[in-house]
Amino acid sequence: MIKMKHKVETSWKGEMKFDAVVSGHHVVMDALPEVGGNNSGPRPKELMLASLAGCTGMDVVSILKKMRVELESFNVVVEADVTDEHPKHYTRMHLIYEFKGKELDLEKLNKAVELSQDKYCGVSAVYRKAMHVTYEIKISE
Amino acid sequence: MIKMKHKVETSWKGEMKFDAVVSGHHVVMDALPEVGGNNSGPRPKELMLASLAGCTGMDVVSILKKMRVELESFNVVVEADVTDEHPKHYTRMHLIYEFKGKELDLEKLNKAVELSQDKYCGVSAVYRKAMHVTYEIKISE
Repeated sequence: MIKMKHKVETSWKGEMKFDAVVSGHHVVMDALPEVGGNNSGPRPKELMLASLAGCTGMDVVSILKKMRVELESFNVVVEADVTDEHPKHYTRMHLIYEFKGKELDLEKLNKAVELSQDKYCGVSAVYRKAMHVTYEIKISE
Repeated sequence: MIKMKHKVETSWKGEMKFDAVVSGHHVVMDALPEVGGNNSGPRPKELMLASLAGCTGMDVVSILKKMRVELESFNVVVEADVTDEHPKHYTRMHLIYEFKGKELDLEKLNKAVELSQDKYCGVSAVYRKAMHVTYEIKISE
Protein backbone atom coordinates (compact mmCIF):
# COMPACT_ATOMS: atom_id res chain seq x y z
CA MET A 1 0.00 0.00 0.00
CA ILE A 2 1.71 3.17 -1.24
CA LYS A 3 1.17 6.12 1.05
CA MET A 4 0.82 9.83 0.43
CA LYS A 5 1.28 12.59 2.97
CA HIS A 6 -1.08 15.40 3.87
CA LYS A 7 0.12 18.37 5.90
CA VAL A 8 -1.67 21.25 7.62
CA GLU A 9 0.18 24.18 9.20
CA THR A 10 -1.58 26.13 11.92
CA SER A 11 -0.45 29.43 13.45
CA TRP A 12 -1.48 30.89 16.77
CA LYS A 13 -2.96 34.40 16.31
CA GLY A 14 -3.14 35.39 20.00
CA GLU A 15 -5.65 34.52 22.71
CA MET A 16 -7.50 31.42 21.44
CA LYS A 17 -7.39 32.17 17.72
CA PHE A 18 -5.65 29.82 15.28
CA ASP A 19 -5.28 30.02 11.52
CA ALA A 20 -4.83 26.74 9.64
CA VAL A 21 -3.73 26.52 6.02
CA VAL A 22 -5.78 23.64 4.63
CA SER A 23 -5.21 22.71 0.97
CA GLY A 24 -4.01 26.29 0.46
CA HIS A 25 -7.07 27.89 2.11
CA HIS A 26 -7.10 29.70 5.44
CA VAL A 27 -9.42 28.29 8.08
CA VAL A 28 -9.71 30.38 11.23
CA MET A 29 -10.68 28.66 14.49
CA ASP A 30 -11.54 30.38 17.73
CA ALA A 31 -13.10 29.71 21.13
CA LEU A 32 -16.07 31.36 22.82
CA PRO A 33 -15.55 34.44 25.05
CA GLU A 34 -16.30 32.40 28.22
CA VAL A 35 -13.11 30.41 27.65
CA GLY A 36 -10.97 33.34 26.52
CA GLY A 37 -11.76 33.49 22.80
CA ASN A 38 -13.53 35.98 20.53
CA ASN A 39 -15.66 33.57 18.48
CA SER A 40 -13.98 34.77 15.26
CA GLY A 41 -14.20 31.27 13.77
CA PRO A 42 -15.62 27.81 14.39
CA ARG A 43 -14.68 25.56 17.29
CA PRO A 44 -11.99 23.06 16.16
CA LYS A 45 -13.82 19.95 17.34
CA GLU A 46 -16.94 20.82 15.35
CA LEU A 47 -14.80 20.94 12.19
CA MET A 48 -14.70 17.14 12.55
CA LEU A 49 -18.40 17.17 11.68
CA ALA A 50 -17.98 19.49 8.67
CA SER A 51 -15.18 17.23 7.48
CA LEU A 52 -17.48 14.20 7.53
CA ALA A 53 -20.39 16.04 5.87
CA GLY A 54 -18.22 17.42 3.06
CA CYS A 55 -16.45 14.11 2.44
CA THR A 56 -19.57 12.01 2.11
CA GLY A 57 -21.50 14.83 0.40
CA MET A 58 -18.92 15.03 -2.39
CA ASP A 59 -19.01 11.26 -2.84
CA VAL A 60 -22.79 11.26 -3.08
CA VAL A 61 -23.07 14.09 -5.65
CA SER A 62 -20.34 12.46 -7.78
CA ILE A 63 -22.06 9.07 -7.72
CA LEU A 64 -25.52 10.54 -8.40
CA LYS A 65 -24.12 12.52 -11.34
CA LYS A 66 -22.87 9.27 -12.87
CA MET A 67 -26.34 7.76 -12.24
CA ARG A 68 -27.89 10.79 -14.00
CA VAL A 69 -29.92 11.69 -10.93
CA GLU A 70 -30.73 15.42 -10.86
CA LEU A 71 -31.03 17.10 -7.50
CA GLU A 72 -32.71 20.39 -6.75
CA SER A 73 -31.03 20.69 -3.39
CA PHE A 74 -29.01 18.49 -1.07
CA ASN A 75 -28.04 18.96 2.57
CA VAL A 76 -25.99 16.82 4.89
CA VAL A 77 -26.67 17.28 8.60
CA VAL A 78 -24.36 15.72 11.18
CA GLU A 79 -25.49 15.32 14.77
CA ALA A 80 -23.02 14.12 17.36
CA ASP A 81 -23.04 13.15 21.02
CA VAL A 82 -20.23 14.70 23.02
CA THR A 83 -19.17 13.72 26.54
CA ASP A 84 -19.19 16.38 29.24
CA GLU A 85 -16.08 14.94 30.86
CA HIS A 86 -12.50 15.40 29.68
CA PRO A 87 -11.44 14.67 27.06
CA LYS A 88 -14.71 16.09 25.70
CA HIS A 89 -15.09 13.96 22.62
CA TYR A 90 -17.64 12.56 20.22
CA THR A 91 -19.01 9.13 21.04
CA ARG A 92 -21.63 8.78 18.30
CA MET A 93 -22.46 10.52 15.03
CA HIS A 94 -25.63 10.47 12.97
CA LEU A 95 -25.85 11.70 9.38
CA ILE A 96 -29.06 12.95 7.79
CA TYR A 97 -28.95 13.13 3.99
CA GLU A 98 -31.71 15.51 2.83
CA PHE A 99 -32.45 15.25 -0.89
CA LYS A 100 -34.87 17.46 -2.79
CA GLY A 101 -35.86 16.92 -6.42
CA LYS A 102 -38.55 15.76 -8.81
CA GLU A 103 -39.41 12.03 -8.76
CA LEU A 104 -36.18 11.02 -7.04
CA ASP A 105 -35.34 7.31 -7.17
CA LEU A 106 -34.92 6.18 -3.54
CA GLU A 107 -32.99 3.10 -4.60
CA LYS A 108 -30.36 5.18 -6.38
CA LEU A 109 -30.08 7.61 -3.47
CA ASN A 110 -29.66 4.69 -1.08
CA LYS A 111 -27.03 3.13 -3.30
CA ALA A 112 -25.06 6.37 -3.55
CA VAL A 113 -25.08 6.88 0.22
CA GLU A 114 -24.14 3.24 0.85
CA LEU A 115 -21.23 3.43 -1.57
CA SER A 116 -19.92 6.52 0.18
CA GLN A 117 -20.29 5.05 3.66
CA ASP A 118 -19.00 1.57 2.84
CA LYS A 119 -16.40 2.25 0.18
CA TYR A 120 -15.34 5.82 -0.52
CA CYS A 121 -15.53 8.22 2.41
CA GLY A 122 -12.19 8.20 4.19
CA VAL A 123 -13.40 10.44 7.01
CA SER A 124 -16.24 8.06 7.80
CA ALA A 125 -13.80 5.13 7.66
CA VAL A 126 -11.71 6.69 10.42
CA TYR A 127 -14.62 7.79 12.63
CA ARG A 128 -16.19 4.33 12.38
CA LYS A 129 -13.08 2.86 13.99
CA ALA A 130 -13.66 5.13 16.98
CA MET A 131 -17.46 5.28 17.36
CA HIS A 132 -20.86 4.33 16.00
CA VAL A 133 -21.78 6.26 12.83
CA THR A 134 -25.36 5.93 11.58
CA TYR A 135 -27.35 7.60 8.82
CA GLU A 136 -30.81 8.18 7.42
CA ILE A 137 -32.14 9.54 4.13
CA LYS A 138 -34.91 12.13 3.76
CA ILE A 139 -36.55 12.99 0.45
CA SER A 140 -38.79 15.90 -0.48
CA GLU A 141 -40.15 17.26 -3.77
CA MET B 1 -22.22 10.59 31.86
CA ILE B 2 -24.50 13.41 30.68
CA LYS B 3 -24.27 14.02 26.97
CA MET B 4 -24.56 17.16 24.88
CA LYS B 5 -25.27 17.33 21.18
CA HIS B 6 -23.32 19.11 18.48
CA LYS B 7 -24.85 19.70 15.07
CA VAL B 8 -23.44 20.87 11.75
CA GLU B 9 -25.63 21.63 8.72
CA THR B 10 -24.03 21.47 5.30
CA SER B 11 -25.57 22.63 2.01
CA TRP B 12 -24.58 21.59 -1.48
CA LYS B 13 -23.71 24.64 -3.61
CA GLY B 14 -23.46 22.90 -6.99
CA GLU B 15 -20.67 20.83 -8.54
CA MET B 16 -18.43 19.77 -5.63
CA LYS B 17 -18.90 22.81 -3.40
CA PHE B 18 -20.38 22.48 0.08
CA ASP B 19 -21.01 25.11 2.73
CA ALA B 20 -21.06 23.95 6.35
CA VAL B 21 -22.32 26.08 9.24
CA VAL B 22 -19.95 25.28 12.07
CA SER B 23 -20.59 26.99 15.42
CA GLY B 24 -22.38 29.72 13.44
CA HIS B 25 -19.50 30.24 10.97
CA HIS B 26 -19.56 29.29 7.30
CA VAL B 27 -16.88 26.85 6.17
CA VAL B 28 -16.73 26.27 2.42
CA MET B 29 -15.29 22.98 1.14
CA ASP B 30 -14.51 22.15 -2.46
CA ALA B 31 -12.67 19.62 -4.59
CA LEU B 32 -9.89 20.11 -7.14
CA PRO B 33 -10.75 20.75 -10.82
CA GLU B 34 -9.50 17.26 -11.81
CA VAL B 35 -12.35 15.72 -9.86
CA GLY B 36 -15.01 18.24 -10.87
CA GLY B 37 -14.47 20.99 -8.29
CA ASN B 38 -13.27 24.60 -8.42
CA ASN B 39 -10.92 24.59 -5.42
CA SER B 40 -12.96 27.36 -3.77
CA GLY B 41 -12.27 25.89 -0.32
CA PRO B 42 -10.29 23.21 1.49
CA ARG B 43 -10.70 19.48 0.95
CA PRO B 44 -13.01 18.04 3.63
CA LYS B 45 -10.64 15.28 4.75
CA GLU B 46 -7.83 17.75 5.43
CA LEU B 47 -10.15 19.63 7.79
CA MET B 48 -9.63 16.64 10.11
CA LEU B 49 -6.03 17.84 10.50
CA ALA B 50 -7.02 21.47 11.16
CA SER B 51 -9.49 20.21 13.74
CA LEU B 52 -6.73 18.36 15.60
CA ALA B 53 -4.28 21.27 15.41
CA GLY B 54 -6.82 23.82 16.66
CA CYS B 55 -8.06 21.58 19.46
CA THR B 56 -4.67 20.79 20.93
CA GLY B 57 -3.34 24.28 20.14
CA MET B 58 -6.07 25.92 22.23
CA ASP B 59 -5.42 23.51 25.11
CA VAL B 60 -1.71 24.28 25.06
CA VAL B 61 -2.04 28.08 25.01
CA SER B 62 -4.61 27.91 27.85
CA ILE B 63 -2.38 25.72 29.98
CA LEU B 64 0.75 27.78 29.27
CA LYS B 65 -1.12 30.97 30.17
CA LYS B 66 -1.93 29.46 33.58
CA MET B 67 1.75 28.49 33.91
CA ARG B 68 2.69 32.11 33.05
CA VAL B 69 4.75 31.01 30.08
CA GLU B 70 4.96 33.77 27.47
CA LEU B 71 5.21 32.75 23.84
CA GLU B 72 6.39 34.88 20.95
CA SER B 73 4.89 32.55 18.39
CA PHE B 74 3.41 29.09 18.30
CA ASN B 75 2.60 26.81 15.37
CA VAL B 76 1.07 23.37 15.25
CA VAL B 77 1.90 21.31 12.18
CA VAL B 78 0.03 18.07 11.49
CA GLU B 79 1.42 15.53 9.05
CA ALA B 80 -0.67 12.52 8.11
CA ASP B 81 -0.26 9.34 6.08
CA VAL B 82 -3.15 8.68 3.74
CA THR B 83 -3.83 5.43 1.88
CA ASP B 84 -4.06 5.52 -1.90
CA GLU B 85 -6.80 2.88 -1.92
CA HIS B 86 -10.48 3.45 -1.13
CA PRO B 87 -11.57 4.54 1.34
CA LYS B 88 -8.65 6.98 1.15
CA HIS B 89 -8.13 7.59 4.84
CA TYR B 90 -5.54 8.63 7.40
CA THR B 91 -3.60 5.83 9.03
CA ARG B 92 -1.13 7.84 11.11
CA MET B 93 -0.78 11.43 12.29
CA HIS B 94 2.21 13.28 13.64
CA LEU B 95 2.02 16.62 15.43
CA ILE B 96 4.88 19.11 15.55
CA TYR B 97 4.51 21.78 18.22
CA GLU B 98 6.78 24.72 17.30
CA PHE B 99 7.31 27.17 20.14
CA LYS B 100 9.23 30.42 19.90
CA GLY B 101 10.06 32.63 22.85
CA LYS B 102 12.73 33.86 25.26
CA GLU B 103 14.18 31.29 27.68
CA LEU B 104 11.28 28.89 27.30
CA ASP B 105 11.04 26.17 29.95
CA LEU B 106 11.02 22.84 28.07
CA GLU B 107 9.54 21.04 31.07
CA LYS B 108 6.51 23.32 31.13
CA LEU B 109 6.03 23.07 27.36
CA ASN B 110 6.22 19.27 27.61
CA LYS B 111 3.73 19.24 30.45
CA ALA B 112 1.25 21.43 28.55
CA VAL B 113 1.44 19.25 25.44
CA GLU B 114 1.13 16.06 27.50
CA LEU B 115 -1.92 17.37 29.34
CA SER B 116 -3.58 18.19 26.04
CA GLN B 117 -2.77 14.85 24.45
CA ASP B 118 -3.55 12.69 27.48
CA LYS B 119 -6.37 14.58 29.15
CA TYR B 120 -8.03 17.45 27.31
CA CYS B 121 -8.04 17.21 23.53
CA GLY B 122 -11.22 15.48 22.44
CA VAL B 123 -10.20 15.38 18.78
CA SER B 124 -6.98 13.57 19.64
CA ALA B 125 -8.93 11.17 21.88
CA VAL B 126 -11.08 10.09 18.92
CA TYR B 127 -8.25 9.86 16.39
CA ARG B 128 -6.16 7.78 18.81
CA LYS B 129 -8.89 5.14 18.81
CA ALA B 130 -8.48 4.84 15.04
CA MET B 131 -4.75 5.30 14.43
CA HIS B 132 -1.33 6.07 15.86
CA VAL B 133 -0.93 9.74 16.83
CA THR B 134 2.57 10.91 17.75
CA TYR B 135 4.11 14.29 18.54
CA GLU B 136 7.33 16.21 18.94
CA ILE B 137 8.22 19.62 20.35
CA LYS B 138 10.52 22.17 18.71
CA ILE B 139 11.79 25.28 20.43
CA SER B 140 13.50 28.36 19.03
CA GLU B 141 14.40 31.79 20.42
